[in-house]
Amino acid sequence: MTTKATGPATDTTHPGGKCDPPAEHHLCMPEDARKRASRRLAIARGHLESVRKSLDDPDVYCIDVLRQLKAVQGALEGAAGVVMRGHLEAHVVAAHERGDEKRIVDELMELFKYT
Amino acid sequence: MTTKATGPATDTTHPGGKCDPPAEHHLCMPEDARKRASRRLAIARGHLESVRKSLDDPDVYCIDVLRQLKAVQGALEGAAGVVMRGHLEAHVVAAHERGDEKRIVDELMELFKYT
Amino acid sequence: MTTKATGPATDTTHPGGKCDPPAEHHLCMPEDARKRASRRLAIARGHLESVRKSLDDPDVYCIDVLRQLKAVQGALEGAAGVVMRGHLEAHVVAAHERGDEKRIVDELMELFKYT
Amino acid sequence: MTTKATGPATDTTHPGGKCDPPAEHHLCMPEDARKRASRRLAIARGHLESVRKSLDDPDVYCIDVLRQLKAVQGALEGAAGVVMRGHLEAHVVAAHERGDEKRIVDELMELFKYT
Repeated sequence: MTTKATGPATDTTHPGGKCDPPAEHHLCMPEDARKRASRRLAIARGHLESVRKSLDDPDVYCIDVLRQLKAVQGALEGAAGVVMRGHLEAHVVAAHERGDEKRIVDELMELFKYT
Repeated sequence: MTTKATGPATDTTHPGGKCDPPAEHHLCMPEDARKRASRRLAIARGHLESVRKSLDDPDVYCIDVLRQLKAVQGALEGAAGVVMRGHLEAHVVAAHERGDEKRIVDELMELFKYT
Repeated sequence: MTTKATGPATDTTHPGGKCDPPAEHHLCMPEDARKRASRRLAIARGHLESVRKSLDDPDVYCIDVLRQLKAVQGALEGAAGVVMRGHLEAHVVAAHERGDEKRIVDELMELFKYT
Repeated sequence: MTTKATGPATDTTHPGGKCDPPAEHHLCMPEDARKRASRRLAIARGHLESVRKSLDDPDVYCIDVLRQLKAVQGALEGAAGVVMRGHLEAHVVAAHERGDEKRIVDELMELFKYT
């Protein structure tokens, strides 16, 4: 039942930590997606810090900074893609079974709107 | 002459550091834009780190992570906007006078293409 | 059974036309979403045509054209949002029940990748 | 003088039509960019119309519509790229000489903001 509550489509039993979500949603992120997204964000953070440091150099060229920022944005999109896939697989595809499809669809549409 | 070389439209004399760019471009980022972009990136880095830390929590919800990543992306876009405005003001609007308009336009178009 | 095959979360019985999809997917777009998206695309097409005609005027200003194109892009995004919501409601949230969640998720992720 | 007013970096004498812009800007789009953008928009309009027609078919699949809309969006971006390059070459790179760089930069930044 707990497994069902967190989405039957993917194993979300969280061997590396207990999933004890607030009562209002009862959905936890698949552990594999959490770990992979975390690694990607750590790399993006390092890249972002090196772009910031490059701004200490009076000789830095605007276009080089913009290119590097674009690469960091790409890395963040990659991490967001990992989270999104995990969400689709673990929660969205089984929303009708759980009965929370209205909330699930509204959340996704709100997210797309701002993209 | 030095002023002209770094773009006559904006003061790019860099009181806080010498602008000594490589011979191939001779264009330096306006100091004010450098400092403001750097501050924004420091804030974005802090936000990104807090998103990464939130992934250590097995209870974190996918949609909350995606919303936070979107906010970080917005912060990076804000920083890129500061750099872009500095570039336009200091370098692009005077490219015809300097005679490097072909390179300047090609660089911008290449950047837009990947957006 | 037919209802289930086209996604139990939304009525997709298509009173205005028979849904007779190719065997490989068995999923039809909800009629309401089809009609609303079609109306939005008709409006966007009219707007696009007026932008195209504005280019016949030698006095047209680049920035005005770019602003109008942006408005057309926004209209297309609005239409795509209607289609996406219909897809999520009618097909994605019930994919686990149907058993085609792998295909459904892969299709969505491929679409997001290019955005 | 007329040549200068329309941006010295590119020929904007408009052999195919007189450039007689309103007094407030005095900048005309390069004719070549106008014609190429117009052709691209005509193609995009045809593509958009075929997507709209595909929505008359009750069997159309949501994801196919979304893919086609993405292709139309790409075509509009291509047309916008033609207009943007013409604007950069004809107007932006010579803004400092004309003395309207503030307006030119503000217009561009406003456009980027909504992207």
